Amino acid sequence: MKLEAKIDWKDGLAFRAHLDGFDFTIDGTPEAGGRNLGPRPKGLTLVSLIGCTGMDVISILGKMKIKVESFSVGAEALLADEHPKKFLEIKVTYRCNGAGITAEPLRKAIALSEEKYCGVRATLSPPVTINHEIVLNGENIPN
Amino acid sequence: MKLEAKIDWKDGLAFRAHLDGFDFTIDGTPEAGGRNLGPRPKGLTLVSLIGCTGMDVISILGKMKIKVESFSVGAEALLADEHPKKFLEIKVTYRCNGAGITAEPLRKAIALSEEKYCGVRATLSPPVTINHEIVLNGENIPN
Repeated sequence: MKLEAKIDWKDGLAFRAHLDGFDFTIDGTPEAGGRNLGPRPKGLTLVSLIGCTGMDVISILGKMKIKVESFSVGAEALLADEHPKKFLEIKVTYRCNGAGITAEPLRKAIALSEEKYCGVRATLSPPVTINHEIVLNGENIPN
Repeated sequence: MKLEAKIDWKDGLAFRAHLDGFDFTIDGTPEAGGRNLGPRPKGLTLVSLIGCTGMDVISILGKMKIKVESFSVGAEALLADEHPKKFLEIKVTYRCNGAGITAEPLRKAIALSEEKYCGVRATLSPPVTINHEIVLNGENIPN
């Protein structure tokens, strides 16, 4: 399977990114010489990770006929302080709400994504340490 | 150094992504159960990589007082055919145009990004094999 992306420089640190037929701007902070016309590129690695696992999980819950009221996935990353400032650790938080959802199928959907389907996670870890927590209807549940 | 991102599920496979104060939509293909309202998350790893190295290179060329007329960075990735469909190889193509640009400073700027500054590259490689080619004023130059 192949995948492509491209960025075209506009000015300063701003680039127009092209992916899957969509265009969006990325840029640096003013401190780095940019104008903040779009997000920094580094965090797109996090969106790639949580987008990939989030789509897996919502898709698996759908196949389980589980009715989800709201669902979000967050990521907090710790990066190296010295160049190259690579990702060291990522904590992923799955937050799911729904009156009829129990812990077990949610845990199973997340485990299926993390262990079998999520290609971005499999790319990053190892060497990046990725942990997760699960919050179901406002309460942390054990992994 | 810390970095955060979040995605909120909308419907189907569509999520709204939040990064650095910007919002954008990611979605799956119709074949996967999505509606193609935004790019797939997996390719964002490529945009993250080429965005990071692209900003490094244009910034370094600027510090070298080199006048760039146009600059783009492309990525082609080979992914595993079986789940998890992780990244195996990425080829990055730097295309730079400018009447006064010679090979040596461009090669040096790219090497500085790849060996010293680009945190996304340092995160991915190894285990992903990342190669590059450089096209200066329409002609491939040796690495």
